[in-house]
Amino acid sequence: MSLHGDYDPQNIFALILRGDAPCYKIYEDADVLAFLDIFPQSRGHVLVIPKACQARNILDVEPAVLGAMMSAVQRLTRVVVDELKPDGVQIAQFNGAPAGQTVYHIHVHIVPRWEGEEAGIHGRGKADPEELKLLQARLVERIRAGD
Amino acid sequence: MSLHGDYDPQNIFALILRGDAPCYKIYEDADVLAFLDIFPQSRGHVLVIPKACQARNILDVEPAVLGAMMSAVQRLTRVVVDELKPDGVQIAQFNGAPAGQTVYHIHVHIVPRWEGEEAGIHGRGKADPEELKLLQARLVERIRAGD
Repeated sequence: MSLHGDYDPQNIFALILRGDAPCYKIYEDADVLAFLDIFPQSRGHVLVIPKACQARNILDVEPAVLGAMMSAVQRLTRVVVDELKPDGVQIAQFNGAPAGQTVYHIHVHIVPRWEGEEAGIHGRGKADPEELKLLQARLVERIRAGD
Repeated sequence: MSLHGDYDPQNIFALILRGDAPCYKIYEDADVLAFLDIFPQSRGHVLVIPKACQARNILDVEPAVLGAMMSAVQRLTRVVVDELKPDGVQIAQFNGAPAGQTVYHIHVHIVPRWEGEEAGIHGRGKADPEELKLLQARLVERIRAGD
C-alpha cells in the first residue's frame, strides 16, 4: 500500500472502532482509543488511534486530530512509564508499507524499551492473551488511579 | 541517560539553537527549527526540534510545545514527500538511551523510506556534506515554492 489512496472502512482498526472486532482497550475518550498491540514489539506496546476520522496517515489527517492524538500519546506514555518502569520509550508513527505500516488507519505506537533487550527482537509473534489481559488491567487501573 | 534527569544546556541541539553549532537548516519559525540529520537513516532524514523549551523528552515537554512540534512535523513530512517522493515515511521520537535517544533535547525524526531499501541499514555513517547541501537546497526551495 502506498502513501496515497482511499481509506478502507474495513481495515481492522475501523472494525475495532465500530465494535465489530475486539481489542485490549486501555483508554478511550471523545477523540481517541488506545489498546494493546497483539503483535507487540515489547511488553506494554500500546497503540493510539483517532476515533472520528478516516485518515490513512500523517499526510491526510486533520491537524486538530493529530494534535488530540499526540496529546493522548503523551498522557499514555506517562502512564506506561509510571506503571511498567521501562528504561526508554519509542514513539513511532509509520506511513506506507516500506515504513512498516500494516493497518491503514493512522496510529501511533508507544513502545517501552528496557536496557539489555534488543529493540524489535520481540516483535515477531502474537502475544499471550493472558499476559495482555494482565497488562490491560494494570494500565487501566493506573489510569483510574491518576484521574 | 535515563528517562528522568536535568536538561543539559550544552547538548548539541541547544548549541545549534543558540547559533553556537552549525546545522543544515531547512525550516524555522517561532516554534521550531528543522534541519538534516548528519547521520541519516535514509536520504532526506529530517529532525524537528522545539525552540523555546528545555525538555529532554515526551515526559517533560509542555503539551502546547509538543502540539506545535507535531504540526510542523506534519507540514515538513508533506514537503519531504512532495520533493523526494519516498514510498513511505517513518515518524519517530525516542526517549532514553535504550530507545535510541542520543541527544537530550526532545526531537522528532522524519525518515523517508523507499521500497527495496532495508530500513535502518543506511544509518551507520556520516552523510556526505555535498549531498546534505543539495538536499537542503531542494527542501528549502520546495518550502519556499509552497508558501
